Amino acid sequence: MRKEANPTMNEYLSDHVHLTDDGTAVVILDQTQLPCRTEYLTLRTAQEMFDAIRLLQVRGAPAIGICAAYDLYVLAQQVSSDTPEAFLTQLRQQADYLASSRPTAVNLSWALNRMLDIAAAQTSIADMLSALHRECIAIHEEDIAMCRAISEYGLTLIKDGDGILTHCNAGPLATSRYGTALGPLFLGKERGMHFHVFSDETRPLLQGARLTSYELSRAGIDVTLICDNMASLVMKNGWIQACFVGCDRVAANGDTANKIGTSGVAILARHYGIPFYVLGPTSTIDLSCATGADIPIEQRDPEEIKQKFYAEPMALPEVKCYNPAFDVTDQSLISGIVTEYGICRAPYTESLRTVFAQKTAGQSGEGRNPL
Amino acid sequence: MRKEANPTMNEYLSDHVHLTDDGTAVVILDQTQLPCRTEYLTLRTAQEMFDAIRLLQVRGAPAIGICAAYDLYVLAQQVSSDTPEAFLTQLRQQADYLASSRPTAVNLSWALNRMLDIAAAQTSIADMLSALHRECIAIHEEDIAMCRAISEYGLTLIKDGDGILTHCNAGPLATSRYGTALGPLFLGKERGMHFHVFSDETRPLLQGARLTSYELSRAGIDVTLICDNMASLVMKNGWIQACFVGCDRVAANGDTANKIGTSGVAILARHYGIPFYVLGPTSTIDLSCATGADIPIEQRDPEEIKQKFYAEPMALPEVKCYNPAFDVTDQSLISGIVTEYGICRAPYTESLRTVFAQKTAGQSGEGRNPL
Repeated sequence: MRKEANPTMNEYLSDHVHLTDDGTAVVILDQTQLPCRTEYLTLRTAQEMFDAIRLLQVRGAPAIGICAAYDLYVLAQQVSSDTPEAFLTQLRQQADYLASSRPTAVNLSWALNRMLDIAAAQTSIADMLSALHRECIAIHEEDIAMCRAISEYGLTLIKDGDGILTHCNAGPLATSRYGTALGPLFLGKERGMHFHVFSDETRPLLQGARLTSYELSRAGIDVTLICDNMASLVMKNGWIQACFVGCDRVAANGDTANKIGTSGVAILARHYGIPFYVLGPTSTIDLSCATGADIPIEQRDPEEIKQKFYAEPMALPEVKCYNPAFDVTDQSLISGIVTEYGICRAPYTESLRTVFAQKTAGQSGEGRNPL
Repeated sequence: MRKEANPTMNEYLSDHVHLTDDGTAVVILDQTQLPCRTEYLTLRTAQEMFDAIRLLQVRGAPAIGICAAYDLYVLAQQVSSDTPEAFLTQLRQQADYLASSRPTAVNLSWALNRMLDIAAAQTSIADMLSALHRECIAIHEEDIAMCRAISEYGLTLIKDGDGILTHCNAGPLATSRYGTALGPLFLGKERGMHFHVFSDETRPLLQGARLTSYELSRAGIDVTLICDNMASLVMKNGWIQACFVGCDRVAANGDTANKIGTSGVAILARHYGIPFYVLGPTSTIDLSCATGADIPIEQRDPEEIKQKFYAEPMALPEVKCYNPAFDVTDQSLISGIVTEYGICRAPYTESLRTVFAQKTAGQSGEGRNPL
């Protein structure tokens, strides 16, 4: 992935996962050090690549997929084999090793398999290396295009000067350039627009503080960090014209699972008459889930609430915690679901099906809204 | 203040501010050490008493008032004067010194002046010491009675087994025994009732985690700590039958300023059809404020959001924060305002005036609800 010159976009945005200029190493921004330290890691060995994913130094399913594709291209150049067959065998061993770093991240194995398939379709080692180089760049560029299409549609929902409230992190660090929920803000910035973003800090893991406010601030976008419980007052003050959030799973009826607290934001937005939008790729829409009631909610370690990040515990050891990672926002509270194929509106059961029919037909959604 | 035997109430509840058995020192629970360390401080000198208030080792306006009254009684015993006049002069100097520790806490000067007035009404030093001893105990007992009356009224609003959500801390640590918003839960516990309390952690200062969950847990009341943004899911789960919160100032129309995030809890409660109650003494009702728009909102240090309690900062130095300490809950979202004179219901402009007429007439509210 070449660095692209774009004076309106901070370099790190296209840079948080990329190849070195000579293509012999992968460079990643170490997300575990944010926001205190902006440190880049140069990955050359399979062990370094494995650790980077396992330790969450690169995180966000799309970003992990992109990184793994670059990883395999770098490792391919280190393979010393006389025949294409022996080369492929060694490449598969490396891919298997990388895939085992976080077996649950579906983008990881998807990207590695796509790389292996393109290599297997070639007849010489030289052709394999060329094809792998093209493919890892294509994987990255396709993610950028998907985020870009979502950003274009999202940008039609807001106007210059608007205040936008967001929750958790669905920006470039979790994907490639632009991101999903934050994409319209980065795209608008490129076009000289100015937004006033309010970032919920998003307890307990503080993705809003550590990642969202970092990304926006570094890109020169006006951002104000608030505690989650301040969203009501910020809305009452008249500072918010739209809420933009990402999604982890969208049911067939539009009910949307996202980071814990999202449903509260949606209820406040409804109370204050502010539109609430969900932004995400069609890969997060699960038509096999009829409603949000079918979406399981992950429960996490109480220590994330009582201890993590703190210099000492903030509650007694015997105090119970309830620590759900997600909640489900009822479709009736959602003003629109923005995908790379366009903006779905209620009734979502129909509009989400329309989007899937389009996707199956292989139409690109960028630049048009067929819904 | 004698320790009272009450096997259903944890000793610390009646004990967090008290005289030693011989009356020559004041003992306080050091609230700056909570929840990690339960440490009591013994205060004998004016300097120690001054520091305890200034350093927030004792906090909560009513608790500060009680502590200062005990302080002055202890210091009075150390005065060496031959005449009542000289005794009073030295006592006033000590009171002035204590009052300067936190000049904005109205209960502090109120309690000290009440102590000085009672001493000045006596003719001998011996009588002064006796009167001061009675008065500091009276100040403490009156606060307990006020909290108890609020607790009695509040307890009529819930039933055994209910789930209660609370925000911030309006319990014994901020007052005397019982507290206000938490009072019905402690009183119900004494009577063998069982409640399931959900305590918002209450960012950024975490009073819910550090104080509320501590108080309830130590008293043997079932409490579950949640992040503020989890309240919506907890309500949706059907676990909450009522919300109980305290108040910092109530306007004449019922609009209520309380810890930031309270208005969000009220909006969620309305969405899910859950009653939302404000509990507080009539001293917090300000009839000179027509509506909540007349209540100023204190803005606090951004470092409370970005850095305080953390091992390292959670956001970049250049990221702006909005850190309001309070918000105003619209009276239309409040199901009732519970005072020591009874439960006010909408229209609040009328019911709050009725309470004040009663207060002026000097009637005790305990045990009856005239509204």
